[in-house]
Amino acid sequence: MTLERGCIQVYTGNGKGKTTAALGLALRAVGWGLRVCVFQFIKGGGPYGEHLIADKLAPLFTIIQTGRPGWVNTKDISEDRRAAQEALERARVILASGEYDLVVLDEINGAVRFGLVDVEQVLELISLKPETTELVLTGRNAHEKVIEAADLVTEMREIKHYYKAGVPARTGIEM
Amino acid sequence: MTLERGCIQVYTGNGKGKTTAALGLALRAVGWGLRVCVFQFIKGGGPYGEHLIADKLAPLFTIIQTGRPGWVNTKDISEDRRAAQEALERARVILASGEYDLVVLDEINGAVRFGLVDVEQVLELISLKPETTELVLTGRNAHEKVIEAADLVTEMREIKHYYKAGVPARTGIEM
Repeated sequence: MTLERGCIQVYTGNGKGKTTAALGLALRAVGWGLRVCVFQFIKGGGPYGEHLIADKLAPLFTIIQTGRPGWVNTKDISEDRRAAQEALERARVILASGEYDLVVLDEINGAVRFGLVDVEQVLELISLKPETTELVLTGRNAHEKVIEAADLVTEMREIKHYYKAGVPARTGIEM
Repeated sequence: MTLERGCIQVYTGNGKGKTTAALGLALRAVGWGLRVCVFQFIKGGGPYGEHLIADKLAPLFTIIQTGRPGWVNTKDISEDRRAAQEALERARVILASGEYDLVVLDEINGAVRFGLVDVEQVLELISLKPETTELVLTGRNAHEKVIEAADLVTEMREIKHYYKAGVPARTGIEM
């Protein structure tokens, strides 16, 4: 099966559920035999549950982590930018190849927000999307030009979050 | 592995990404070896991709559909209510059993909204949650009492949706 028409989806906002919504789309797509690539920016840490499950969903599900371990060094982004620029080059090849029916660019909005990737580079990446490929971009503070380029945009808005009640990020749920 | 502490999460709002966020959580949890049950209210149709993938994720992933095929008959809810009440009884047994680390009550907010399940019944169901079980409730227009009972609430807010541009629900993406 292939998609007749691929759209561009954006999941943004300060609430929980952006990456997981993309992973849920991936799960659903793999169920239908679609080929999925989840390409993660600024997520060099882990492993996360989505990496540990990859073998079970192979060969339809591919997940690629990029970025340095730990969070972005906002005092000196040079290393993070170099890693993100390398990642961007890989993402271009993956998206343009047409080998995937669904491509998730996880946390690419964050990469833009931190200045690791320029928004024009993201727009150029989006322009490489084959017609039948669904493209999903995640991360808070999506750039307005990315929102403009998208067909579907959902803002995940935090109404209540348990980290404020002292619940730390938990393996199996947040990771 | 088990969770040290299970929380109550709600995904609501009119935007896309509620069920998929829950499915993404399920994917991640199964990656860590957690036992997941996705219990769907008013979703008798399909199959959806999440049903087709279930075998690959077994035995950690269980998905149960309930409800009549098609959407709720809002002119006469009696049959839908009967199905939802039966489903509620099954959900009680599943949640209280402690056999699952993550239980998703998909579209239960919709079941309340349509009068198929009373909000007090949902609160009573929530009260059965074992301490180490994570509970996720989805569906738009979550009742304020459910929001109050939750530890984490995300509103998926529609900023832009492609159905307004004439893109129909697509197999592999929306189903």
